[in-house]
Amino acid sequence: MDYQPRLDDIHRILFGVLDAAPQLQALPAFAEVDAALMQQVLDEAGKFVASEIAPLQRVGDETGARFEAGRVIMAPGFREAYQAFWQAGWPALANAPEDGGQGLPGVLEAVLYEMLSAANHGWTMAPGLLHGAYECLKHHGSPELKARYLEKIATGEWLATMCLTESHAGSDLGLVRTKATPQADGSYRISGGKIFISGGEHDLTDNIVHLVLARLPDASPGPKGLSLFLAPKLLPEGTRNGVFCERIEEKMGLHGSPTCVLRFEDATGWLVGEPGKGLNAMFVMMNAARLHVGLQGIALLEAAWQKASAYAAERRQMRAPGASETSLIQDHPAIQRILQTQRAWVDGGRLLAYRTALELDMIKHHPDAARREAALRWCSLVTPVLKAAWTRQGFLGASECLQVFGGHGYVREWGIEQIVRDARITMIYEGTNEIQAIDLLVRKVLPDHGAALGALLDGLAAEGPLPAEVTQRFERLREITARLGRAATGRADLPYWVADDYLQALALALLGWAGARIAHTLPEWQAPAQALRNWVLPEFGLRTQIIEQQIPATGTAAA
Amino acid sequence: MDYQPRLDDIHRILFGVLDAAPQLQALPAFAEVDAALMQQVLDEAGKFVASEIAPLQRVGDETGARFEAGRVIMAPGFREAYQAFWQAGWPALANAPEDGGQGLPGVLEAVLYEMLSAANHGWTMAPGLLHGAYECLKHHGSPELKARYLEKIATGEWLATMCLTESHAGSDLGLVRTKATPQADGSYRISGGKIFISGGEHDLTDNIVHLVLARLPDASPGPKGLSLFLAPKLLPEGTRNGVFCERIEEKMGLHGSPTCVLRFEDATGWLVGEPGKGLNAMFVMMNAARLHVGLQGIALLEAAWQKASAYAAERRQMRAPGASETSLIQDHPAIQRILQTQRAWVDGGRLLAYRTALELDMIKHHPDAARREAALRWCSLVTPVLKAAWTRQGFLGASECLQVFGGHGYVREWGIEQIVRDARITMIYEGTNEIQAIDLLVRKVLPDHGAALGALLDGLAAEGPLPAEVTQRFERLREITARLGRAATGRADLPYWVADDYLQALALALLGWAGARIAHTLPEWQAPAQALRNWVLPEFGLRTQIIEQQIPATGTAAA
Repeated sequence: MDYQPRLDDIHRILFGVLDAAPQLQALPAFAEVDAALMQQVLDEAGKFVASEIAPLQRVGDETGARFEAGRVIMAPGFREAYQAFWQAGWPALANAPEDGGQGLPGVLEAVLYEMLSAANHGWTMAPGLLHGAYECLKHHGSPELKARYLEKIATGEWLATMCLTESHAGSDLGLVRTKATPQADGSYRISGGKIFISGGEHDLTDNIVHLVLARLPDASPGPKGLSLFLAPKLLPEGTRNGVFCERIEEKMGLHGSPTCVLRFEDATGWLVGEPGKGLNAMFVMMNAARLHVGLQGIALLEAAWQKASAYAAERRQMRAPGASETSLIQDHPAIQRILQTQRAWVDGGRLLAYRTALELDMIKHHPDAARREAALRWCSLVTPVLKAAWTRQGFLGASECLQVFGGHGYVREWGIEQIVRDARITMIYEGTNEIQAIDLLVRKVLPDHGAALGALLDGLAAEGPLPAEVTQRFERLREITARLGRAATGRADLPYWVADDYLQALALALLGWAGARIAHTLPEWQAPAQALRNWVLPEFGLRTQIIEQQIPATGTAAA
Repeated sequence: MDYQPRLDDIHRILFGVLDAAPQLQALPAFAEVDAALMQQVLDEAGKFVASEIAPLQRVGDETGARFEAGRVIMAPGFREAYQAFWQAGWPALANAPEDGGQGLPGVLEAVLYEMLSAANHGWTMAPGLLHGAYECLKHHGSPELKARYLEKIATGEWLATMCLTESHAGSDLGLVRTKATPQADGSYRISGGKIFISGGEHDLTDNIVHLVLARLPDASPGPKGLSLFLAPKLLPEGTRNGVFCERIEEKMGLHGSPTCVLRFEDATGWLVGEPGKGLNAMFVMMNAARLHVGLQGIALLEAAWQKASAYAAERRQMRAPGASETSLIQDHPAIQRILQTQRAWVDGGRLLAYRTALELDMIKHHPDAARREAALRWCSLVTPVLKAAWTRQGFLGASECLQVFGGHGYVREWGIEQIVRDARITMIYEGTNEIQAIDLLVRKVLPDHGAALGALLDGLAAEGPLPAEVTQRFERLREITARLGRAATGRADLPYWVADDYLQALALALLGWAGARIAHTLPEWQAPAQALRNWVLPEFGLRTQIIEQQIPATGTAAA
């Protein structure tokens, strides 16, 4: 059974609970965009995903991308689907009209990518990288570079890559060694090796635009010596640039997406942004990219849930408690618990992720600086939480869904084990989940003594009355944050030990808030709300307890 | 890096903490078996595993078992390794001397299989099934059947299978439809389809002995109508029996072990045990088989830990808190936490699993009925806990170890992702973890109102002084058990909702006990003990809280 976009479920969260339409329509940029238009766009997107992308899920895994003498041949059907995708205008949905885009809200793009990732995570990797490259070039590219590449990227006619990682420089980009040497004509010669380049080579598009992190000859060591360059696969005059794909990785999953080892050998490139500001240029797109990875977690969990709940509604084994004959497995408590728990994570995650996408739209388009500031705060704090906690749940929850199938879950034909394998990468790429946790606690929450977090929680409380347990979780978080901050002044390593627990605690507090909002609006959401209360949210107490245990009254924490 | 058996670590738990040698030597059957002999056997086993089995780990995954026109060709090297294995006497280590075995304690066999599974889970599936078949035939086979097959199985010259599952009968064996029709000569004709038959066909041995669950013509429906039959691949006269391998499954992992779809077509077989007592004959070996799956969880976690800790000791990325230059990743708190947590689960699991194997030796060989009774109680209660909680941790902990590698963990060359894929099946086979939890709580703990569990905990307390927090956990468990039992009288489905939490709570209580025992004996076990206290054992409170939340004072639980 292929993934089926369930637009009704999505509309209920996006328009029913989040009430996104009037908020967007209030922005000058989207004055013409009403709920009916947005629903129509999403319904069309759903049809495209169901008919063109979902059917390629298995061939992407089984045949996958193949490497042959420097070329990468994508799985059968991938190129055709991609050509149909960009020609229908989907990559350009939320891009600026002056760049060839449709100028629609980013939140629609977020939902589109949720559906695409659920249908076919591997295929979706290719267009998924376009958007960061577009933003990066739009904000930092020179007029000449933009004239040559921006529209091609905006429309998706050409695909793009992010060439950051090197074999010795993964999480630590400061160690990057690739060199860029200035040429008389203003271009640069780039040389070095890059790994883990998704879509570094393929046959989906005629050209590929690489954004490459490299070091100028006189650059200082460390992250501040890094600059960003654009180096296309085909040069403007049509000749092949010095970018070579040496091999593609054999991976646990995501076989539909080629993960390339690239060698830049005197490749011609042009500077994007200022010298030494390469990382800044990339941070522009970081929040959006991380949100999209969080959405992948939600998407894969939805896809796994669809498979497991369909199976549980057909398969009979043993009698459920109180039954007089063999029961559907969906009637067994252990199975119900698994299914309703994932439902709660999916819907709660959707509310938070769609809200984050909406806040990104506010950052771009809201006329009021204070509102933009609040939106920036939301994105800064919630994005790492979505990225880490929902990719974690994407993997663990998909594995729970696999369990619903018993032994059948372990065999390929049911497709559930592919989701588990594919989902595992989301906990690693775009910054490992451990790095997200450190980003949240050490870089964002503690430096201002919890002020931004406090303002975020105040904002949620101000939006409407909340159940007491939601407010209590918020209070506990403030208290823990304050105590942690004080203890960390005496012991700088302390936050690093408990950052994962802190992120998970905030995730659960936000999930509790989201669940309360959904249950308030949607009466049919009883069972997931109960699962949330019974099986999921008690972990909040565990996480805060683990953190507190590390903050002794004396101030000398034991780790 | 292949898995390396670390005999020193194993000896420390088995002889240092558990003090297995004098307990075994006190049994008449093992009067000649002292610590030196046992260590020597294990050291030899370790050498065999390291030199013959571990190097085949990757080819087992990448080439795997192949199906060709009804035949299964095992991965290169598998047959040679198996022939060396049985000819060296390893399968017969703990089997009775009168059957061609060496008569050594079963605990040595348990350690042997831990090492084998860590080195190569796929290869180990083949001999792993021998031991259950041996016990089953030894206790239930007719003299004629034993004369023909027992020694072949005891020595491992022929391998064996367990043919239980059918496509519609997985966890629910009562639904089995395979038929056995009596023949004039006392044999039976067996017809039907079986799935998920590990080693159902292969080229490791000349013959394969299938134990098949089937239904006699006049049998009642449900589990009581099932009988057990022995049907060999080659009949005594050398001709091929009517057992056909139709295909092998494509699986998430464990590619080294062929999972066969078998068709029995008028296959000749002989009854094992009494008609209608097929399931009883199989339950004989259930505890031992489930212990071995729990050991697989421990083994895979040890293998994953070895890889991750070696990588963390070589790879440098970013500065750890307080460091002035780029640090080894093992110095980052998030990585230390992952590694020490797995260390604690491995060593604590070993103590419990070796103890369980020792108790199985007591059941077989202790002259005192009361001691045998206590041993039976231990195995009955602890085995499902080991099977479920340690296979869960085997998978989740291996996934944590994968995380240590960052992006490299997701690519095949490091071998860690294989362990995660292989480990996933252990949560399913030999009874899913959900079924283990129901077995523990609904079938074993509640029916006698927690008496057996209480006796088990009393026994541990009587063995020596325990830290207060260990005793407190035991008390909490007794209390929760009593309350749960009372509440369940009003609501029979209640235990089914919280069985997983209950099993996990007992697992953590036992792990806490094991950790205290190890830390008491081994001063070098500081860091894992601290990880246990800081990051692992707090979950005990979460699990008991989830259960308690379902037991309202009014007696009407809300699930």
